Amino acid sequence: MPINVAFTPAEAAHADVGVVVDVLRATSTIAQALAAGYERVLCAAEIEEAESLRAELDDAIVGGERDAVRVAGFDVGASPRAFVEARASTLILSTTNGTRAILEAASRCEHVLLGSLLNLDAVAAAAAERGGDVAILCAGFKGAFALDDAYCAGRIVQLLAGERNDAATAAELVAGAYPTALEALNARTYGPPGLEEDIAFCARENVLDVVPRLAGMVGTAAEIRI
Amino acid sequence: MPINVAFTPAEAAHADVGVVVDVLRATSTIAQALAAGYERVLCAAEIEEAESLRAELDDAIVGGERDAVRVAGFDVGASPRAFVEARASTLILSTTNGTRAILEAASRCEHVLLGSLLNLDAVAAAAAERGGDVAILCAGFKGAFALDDAYCAGRIVQLLAGERNDAATAAELVAGAYPTALEALNARTYGPPGLEEDIAFCARENVLDVVPRLAGMVGTAAEIRI
Repeated sequence: MPINVAFTPAEAAHADVGVVVDVLRATSTIAQALAAGYERVLCAAEIEEAESLRAELDDAIVGGERDAVRVAGFDVGASPRAFVEARASTLILSTTNGTRAILEAASRCEHVLLGSLLNLDAVAAAAAERGGDVAILCAGFKGAFALDDAYCAGRIVQLLAGERNDAATAAELVAGAYPTALEALNARTYGPPGLEEDIAFCARENVLDVVPRLAGMVGTAAEIRI
Repeated sequence: MPINVAFTPAEAAHADVGVVVDVLRATSTIAQALAAGYERVLCAAEIEEAESLRAELDDAIVGGERDAVRVAGFDVGASPRAFVEARASTLILSTTNGTRAILEAASRCEHVLLGSLLNLDAVAAAAAERGGDVAILCAGFKGAFALDDAYCAGRIVQLLAGERNDAATAAELVAGAYPTALEALNARTYGPPGLEEDIAFCARENVLDVVPRLAGMVGTAAEIRI
């Protein structure tokens, strides 16, 4: 079973199972929301798209941030800490890098799962269960390599048996280089300041056993369920 | 002085100095050819382009391979071992990943240098001398991450003082993970078999003190001189 990692969405190859990783914060937030009782999360790349879904749907709230600031008019931000209790059946989430990575995965992989440190063992077990090629697809940051996603990808690779591609080998080296997940996530250099509490939240390992999966599309938004 | 690494040409950012790395084999071969006495190397992405330059120029030979096999009609292959003695004043070299990376660098960086393990200290010193931002631009393989280039990039990063981006941090981790350059280059998983002697040649460190630089364009080919 080949185990491939793509550090950026542009590098994503075809695979039976794609595991999307946007550890700060989309895939962590989605796992948390579904574990808390939201029935589904709709990932919309653009704010306007999230707003129009909000207008169409009953029993939905909309969350999203840009540069760590809640989008004006949205019900909540994008922090996973905002989703420890379900407030509706549908969460609409506007996330740029994460949604792009999920849509890329959908176009190249038969099954799309969402990985994070929160559900590390659960997502690795679900990926292995399928028995085919696995591609771990990092959302990255604005099309470039992101250390936090590479670290999380490497942690997933460590749990899977199979032949690694070059990026999977490098991801394992990154994963092995930090004593704790928190130190790895804090080693990243991009993104806005002020996310310390979210980073600590997302650095916790195996506190959720949900495996978010791409269930289909609602318009141009990706529908994620467990 | 920020020290940035781009693992793929698509990730390349703007910088004062771009150091292109295609350690197996383009940037190693070019350093070797210029050290041996070729006055310039013209890097052409396409075979047809290399052939038409060959027809136009006096005192030039043309080298290039596809999948480790010499291109039909070319004077030599692309092995650095074929360039230990100069046979003309101009070497025209057809190399896909390396040329693309050089052209990307040219569009984003004021100065473009070519790095390899053969000229490790020399290229790092030349990059530092400029005093501005340095971007180390890996050629990669077909647009994706390549472990050998990441290793060489990390070796260059280790020699430079300055704030690292995420990829530079990861490249240093990769560089620190292998006891020898040969082991790092052999850990790569892509590409054709049968390159053992070239890999051993390219894994030698600091045997050349040349710093190949982009001097300009000849048509759509990149002209490299020392």
